[in-house]
Parts: sequence; C-alpha cells; structure tokens
Amino acid sequence: MSDRRTALLTAAVQEIARTGTRGLRVEEVAKRANVSPALIYHHFGDRSTLLQSALEHVGDQADAYTSHNEGTGREVLLAVLVDEIQDDDAVRTNSTAWGELRDSSIFDVTLRPTIESLTARWVDDIAELIRTGQDDGSIDPSIMPHEMGMCLSAIVEGFSARWLTGILTTDQARNHLAAAVSLLVPATPGS
Amino acid sequence: MSDRRTALLTAAVQEIARTGTRGLRVEEVAKRANVSPALIYHHFGDRSTLLQSALEHVGDQADAYTSHNEGTGREVLLAVLVDEIQDDDAVRTNSTAWGELRDSSIFDVTLRPTIESLTARWVDDIAELIRTGQDDGSIDPSIMPHEMGMCLSAIVEGFSARWLTGILTTDQARNHLAAAVSLLVPATPGS
Repeated sequence: MSDRRTALLTAAVQEIARTGTRGLRVEEVAKRANVSPALIYHHFGDRSTLLQSALEHVGDQADAYTSHNEGTGREVLLAVLVDEIQDDDAVRTNSTAWGELRDSSIFDVTLRPTIESLTARWVDDIAELIRTGQDDGSIDPSIMPHEMGMCLSAIVEGFSARWLTGILTTDQARNHLAAAVSLLVPATPGS
Repeated sequence: MSDRRTALLTAAVQEIARTGTRGLRVEEVAKRANVSPALIYHHFGDRSTLLQSALEHVGDQADAYTSHNEGTGREVLLAVLVDEIQDDDAVRTNSTAWGELRDSSIFDVTLRPTIESLTARWVDDIAELIRTGQDDGSIDPSIMPHEMGMCLSAIVEGFSARWLTGILTTDQARNHLAAAVSLLVPATPGS
C-alpha cells in the first residue's frame, strides 16, 4: 500500500474515532490528512468505499499490534487477545473506530460484508492459534477451535467496549479479559 | 411512570435503534409518538436528558424481559443471561439502542454516568444470582461474584453485537453465549 493511501486511511480512522461513522465528513478527513477532498474521492471513489477501506485498515492495524510469536500456543493466544486492549492512543483509536464501524453496520448494510469477512478472518486466526496450542500440548485437545474462536473474539469486543467507555481501566480490562480466557482455555496439566 | 411518559420513551428508543443516537432528532421522536416536539421538551427538558431517560428505560426493559425465577441459582443465571438475546423485535430494538447509547458515551460524556450506573446495577444483579447459586449449592463457592458479573455482562455485550450485526443468528448467539457461560460458571458436581 502506498504511503499516501496509508496516510489517508489513518486520517479516516482518526476521524471515525473522533466523531463516529455517521458524523464522518470527507472534508474533515481531507483537512486532517492535509490534502484536498478531491484526492480522497480520487483514491476511494465514494464515502462508502472510504468507510470500507478504513475498516479493512483497522483490521490490518489490529493484526499488527497484537502480533506475538514467543511461547507455547496457549501463551501466544493469551498475549494476542489481551493486546487488543493497550494503553496506547493508536490502539484506542483503532478499537473505537472498529466498534463504530461494526455498530454502524447494523444501520448501513454496505458495511456488513467487510465486517463479516474481517470477523471471520479474526476467528480463523484465533482458531489457528488454538490448533497450534493443541499441537504443542498447551491447549486441551477437546476444545473446538472455531467455536472457541467465535467466543473469544466476542469476549474481546465486550471488554473492549467497557474499556473504551471508561467503565474499566486498561489494566482492569486486560486483567478481566485474561482471567476469562484462562478459564475458557485452561492450561493442560503439566504444560 | 405515566403511560404518556412511557410512550414517549418507547418512541425515543425506537428512533435511536433506527437512526442511532447522533442521528436522533426530537422532531422524529415526536412524530413517532404522535405528539408535538414541545411535549417532549416539556417532559424531558432537553435532548441530553431525553437520551439519558431513554437509556434508563432501555435498562428497565432489559430487566423485565430477562426475568426468571424457577430453578437453581445457576439455572436462573443462565436463563437470565441468554435471554438478553431473543428473536423478538422489542428485544432487538432495546439491544440496538443500548449498544448505540453505550458507544455514543465514548463521544458524549453526558451519557457516561448513566451507562456506568446501569452497568454497575447489571453487574450487581448477576453477582446476586451467583450468590444465590452458591447458597443453594449449584455454583462453585470459589467464584468471585462481582468479578464474574463484570465478565459475564461484558460477554453478553460481545455476543449481542455479533447478533445485531447479523454475523450470528439468534440461535447461534444464544448457543454460543450459553456455552461460554457454562464453561465460566461450571455446574458443581452433583448439582
């Protein structure tokens, strides 16, 4: 992806996190990115395509900041899930935009296919981590990877909302989330 | 609460579920309730107070349609939580409005105290059900009621979003939610 396009998407995500999807004005995104509105339309065609592209960008960003490699499958799984909540402005902005776009898809059906495919990708990624843990013996083989992936990703979204609304601090949200994941995906004896 | 006031709040909740909080126009609420906008201002003072009152109404409605009495503490807990998701237009409307108002509170700080106190009440209610289950022997006494209440209510919100966006059907969302709750609050042996 070109730097220019990335900068425009970053500006769009920041605007969505600031004003919400329905309040989003292409002119404000342009001002934030220090370009003309025409350039945004040139890159993204229309407002709807801009929103879908911003949503995909949000998904890619989350993939990047939750990346972990070290440890058993179960350790990586826990670290990846808990890192959806971080005391970091970029993470907070990204999560706010995700929640906004997801909930806007209740009203704006053009966003639904992208929400569905990103959620499916997220569930698949979690299922893959569970299978890795089952292969290395750190996760109980009776757990169904895909079902648990759906459950864990929904739980992350629930705690994320508590965090973004300020009902839980970052530490509280991370600790509650880690405790829930630990109960749902218990360590195998001796692992 | 007077019938008139209830009718106005029902109209407000329906409008929030249709257009979102930020798109809410008092004139549209008035039209839906077949009254004048002046009457809405007379009852609620301003738009902000109307939103807060609508939010409280959403909380009261959820209390009503999730009410259960029969069975062990654990059975009642499961039924109450799963009934946050029902194939019923009024429940869907109520949940959509709750998600909207909750997420608007990220941007609109005037909604935060009400979101916080309703969430705290919800967590307390779940904790009370857990204590009932611990007293009647159906729930493990080592579970911490308040912490688990925070966790379970967040999980309900996560699955509710999946359901409202159409990623999960009503049955899928209820089944996934029941499975997660069963794992987090396992039956005590012999109960």
